[in-house]
Amino acid sequence: MKKVGYVQTAPIFGDKEKNFNQIENLLVNVKADLLVLPELFATGYTFISKEEAISFAETSNEKTSQFLKKISKMTGAVIVGGYIEQAENEIYNSAMIVSNDRVVDSYRKIHLYYKEKLWFSSGDKPFKVYEVNDIKIGVMICFDWIFPETVRTLALLGADIIAHPANLVLPYCQNAMITRSLENRVFSITSNRIGEENRGEDHFQFTGQSQIISIHGENLSLAPKDEIFIELVDIDIKKARDKKLNEYNNLFKDRRQDFYYQNDN
Amino acid sequence: MKKVGYVQTAPIFGDKEKNFNQIENLLVNVKADLLVLPELFATGYTFISKEEAISFAETSNEKTSQFLKKISKMTGAVIVGGYIEQAENEIYNSAMIVSNDRVVDSYRKIHLYYKEKLWFSSGDKPFKVYEVNDIKIGVMICFDWIFPETVRTLALLGADIIAHPANLVLPYCQNAMITRSLENRVFSITSNRIGEENRGEDHFQFTGQSQIISIHGENLSLAPKDEIFIELVDIDIKKARDKKLNEYNNLFKDRRQDFYYQNDN
Repeated sequence: MKKVGYVQTAPIFGDKEKNFNQIENLLVNVKADLLVLPELFATGYTFISKEEAISFAETSNEKTSQFLKKISKMTGAVIVGGYIEQAENEIYNSAMIVSNDRVVDSYRKIHLYYKEKLWFSSGDKPFKVYEVNDIKIGVMICFDWIFPETVRTLALLGADIIAHPANLVLPYCQNAMITRSLENRVFSITSNRIGEENRGEDHFQFTGQSQIISIHGENLSLAPKDEIFIELVDIDIKKARDKKLNEYNNLFKDRRQDFYYQNDN
Repeated sequence: MKKVGYVQTAPIFGDKEKNFNQIENLLVNVKADLLVLPELFATGYTFISKEEAISFAETSNEKTSQFLKKISKMTGAVIVGGYIEQAENEIYNSAMIVSNDRVVDSYRKIHLYYKEKLWFSSGDKPFKVYEVNDIKIGVMICFDWIFPETVRTLALLGADIIAHPANLVLPYCQNAMITRSLENRVFSITSNRIGEENRGEDHFQFTGQSQIISIHGENLSLAPKDEIFIELVDIDIKKARDKKLNEYNNLFKDRRQDFYYQNDN
């Protein structure tokens, strides 16, 4: 069994230290195997210029990585959490995967939402599955959910569980993730934030309701809409490796690839 | 605006005439543009041998097609409904598309469920979209829903609406179709049956709750679990042709095909 969970937070825009402390305080005495934090958990979401977003960007060897290493060592968990990644001349809406003293990798959000297209470059590296703590972790960020190819690709690459940092503002994702888990027989953890941001022309109300979904589409944990919240559940992660639905059906072997849209269409 | 709907029936196993009459009585005075009937609406579902399934099979020029032409002429609607298709030496779990005096085509179910694999051959023709009555209709049958590639393929082929004859026995599909419509911005009509069948080792309780979903994932119609039911709604079908989500996002143009699983993986 593996202990996996999320931390649902209320980030304060632009105040990394306070946002780190909020999470650290929630993790006192927590032991786990995998913990997912929200998208852009340290910075807030609603930038008003590219310059502002750049001003919060970091490489994977600065404050945010130090913080993630600290809480990884403290909890024993691999941590997946969002940050603005500085890489050469580009910035990305990324999720860092950190285990103990090691930055495993950063996933760069492939499907950008709304004005993110003005601040960030689109992810330029393939979807990937990371095996850490004997868990095969597929990573996606927020709006990636709406493209069924995202979780499908991660599941076909062998993911047991989808780590899904999010800053959700539309009401659709939480229900859709039930289908994502079910159609791929993978676990999923959506770690969302709460609160609101009014900056420039934009007003965003974040929807909370972070959740953990089983391979059968059951809701194993569902956070409130408007409270800072942490929850851990014990799951038998290896169940995600068997795609058999019944004696006659296997969700992966039954795929009829010759009849699906081809990528060059 | 187009008037589209479903007929949720309680088929009597093996009694085609009674099953035809049940539907015809529900359609008195109905005028519509598209009507969807359940999977295998004339025969029932739970066969106990291949021979038995073969005994109910028809070409597209026999009793069932005559009935479908009759109700198409009566209602003015293109009809999509399930039957056992006899074709050379194979039988298929198919859906016939009938408009007025014409059999447009038959779709052969591509993803067979459970013991259907013992009776039927798997669909051997590509997913296709049929333009009839100025509606671009994508057809799939029951279990096809669980493979996200099905609706995705039909939507990329230009479907405005998914006509989905079903004999659902699991509790997942109705909720998943909300996501299918939402992720592809297509309308969908799931026409399910009610009642139960106890034949051989199998006991199936069919779940009813036929439904019509909008391009935004709204439930425009939801039938009861256990009543014969017909419902029609007026929809602006052309709304499905615009995949724009907001000023920055378009659900089809934002696809990042280079990062999705390739068919030869």
